[in-house]
Amino acid sequence: MLYFIGLGLGDAKDITVKGLEIVKQCSRVYLEAYTSILTVGKDALEEYYGRELILADRDMVEQEADEILRGADISDVAFLVVGDPFGATTHSDLVLRAVNAGIQYRVIHNASIMNAVGCCGLQLYNFGETVSIVFWTDTWRPESFYDKIKKNRDLGMHTLCLLGEGRKVYEPPRYMTVSQASGQLLEITICVGLARVGAEDQAIRAGTLSQLATCDLGGPLHSLIVTGNLHPLEVDMLRLSAVTADALQGLRAADSSTYTS
Amino acid sequence: MLYFIGLGLGDAKDITVKGLEIVKQCSRVYLEAYTSILTVGKDALEEYYGRELILADRDMVEQEADEILRGADISDVAFLVVGDPFGATTHSDLVLRAVNAGIQYRVIHNASIMNAVGCCGLQLYNFGETVSIVFWTDTWRPESFYDKIKKNRDLGMHTLCLLGEGRKVYEPPRYMTVSQASGQLLEITICVGLARVGAEDQAIRAGTLSQLATCDLGGPLHSLIVTGNLHPLEVDMLRLSAVTADALQGLRAADSSTYTS
Repeated sequence: MLYFIGLGLGDAKDITVKGLEIVKQCSRVYLEAYTSILTVGKDALEEYYGRELILADRDMVEQEADEILRGADISDVAFLVVGDPFGATTHSDLVLRAVNAGIQYRVIHNASIMNAVGCCGLQLYNFGETVSIVFWTDTWRPESFYDKIKKNRDLGMHTLCLLGEGRKVYEPPRYMTVSQASGQLLEITICVGLARVGAEDQAIRAGTLSQLATCDLGGPLHSLIVTGNLHPLEVDMLRLSAVTADALQGLRAADSSTYTS
Repeated sequence: MLYFIGLGLGDAKDITVKGLEIVKQCSRVYLEAYTSILTVGKDALEEYYGRELILADRDMVEQEADEILRGADISDVAFLVVGDPFGATTHSDLVLRAVNAGIQYRVIHNASIMNAVGCCGLQLYNFGETVSIVFWTDTWRPESFYDKIKKNRDLGMHTLCLLGEGRKVYEPPRYMTVSQASGQLLEITICVGLARVGAEDQAIRAGTLSQLATCDLGGPLHSLIVTGNLHPLEVDMLRLSAVTADALQGLRAADSSTYTS
């Protein structure tokens, strides 16, 4: 039997009683090492379970699945996953390989962020599609998550934003903070403030919503534009009145492909 | 401390190790008795936990919250919930009462259907709004779940349909089956089959998709209409060619209010 066992979200004791009993009796115990982190490390888990854990990173699961499945038809092998086994990464590939090899499998569920998020008081029923917000780089600023959030809001739904990992091969993972994610979201909303239009001292300032929140455009009358899709020519124009040189960095990477000029 | 402890989805051993330790040490242990069921009953839980459990039905949680909270500022009280504590019913009311009474609370998460459903192989990321399908009666046939499913499908999202409880006060609960829910979904899709229109032996049959699937309209040519919103007059007309007398029972209750005649 191949057991997929969820470890929950906190520490070693968040495994279920059933899961712990199975871990203690399996011939080999793998620990999935790539989708999420507990507050404790492998050593603490090994000590609490009283078992040696074999770290299984993405490469191993994809390329050495046969090794993981070895002997699982005649003995028990456990595959431990932080959260629920079918939360973030579904292990469909490993399941299908097991089934094809005539090996039975069983899932021991546990909490994952997809349901535990209900602790904040928002109804799980009212969540739409979950999105992932990834780290932006100077040249890669994907914004598809924004459109999904907008779709959800249009339907009156909440959106759970899973915050990105920035791991590159052979680098330790880095985890996005709520502050970083909020900053990226703020940068997406490009606005234009206008004051005293037509007067000699008219002022136009383009920037993110947060930039404009601290921008003094002087006496009345003021107007504010919240931009939608932007034509590349519009972007060029807005740059003329950008609050700061990099104020419009957040402009949508898809712009030039959205419009044909 | 007031502990909200998730029990998971299966049997007594699906509680987490942490949850079990807390249950054993609390001065009183309540078992929420109204949102879901385990495969085992209260007796089996009491035996495994080694603790007496106080059943807390909806009335008690709403009307005797003070009794549940009694002494939780100086000792520990546990409130057990099948699945995750913030899965189906959020216990926001109880949380707020505790906080207002100066009682600290803590949540011990566990699996619930909202995340465990990932075991079927569909990505949790790709689920839209969750819907509830309730038992229809002769006079009450709500279909709002259909519109939500459609919205999700329009966005390319899967829809988890939680199947209704039919409990009335002082009656044992009954639980909707997949078969019953599928039947209700099938009844919603009213279609019209037409054969040899204009010929002497033309045939028109209106019914649910499943009825038309077993309906022989004879020789060619055939056409099929999948209906959208129906005007009350259209409904009257379709009844003339209904496959069976009750074929159009499933027609949308909202029809007469959707249109003004």
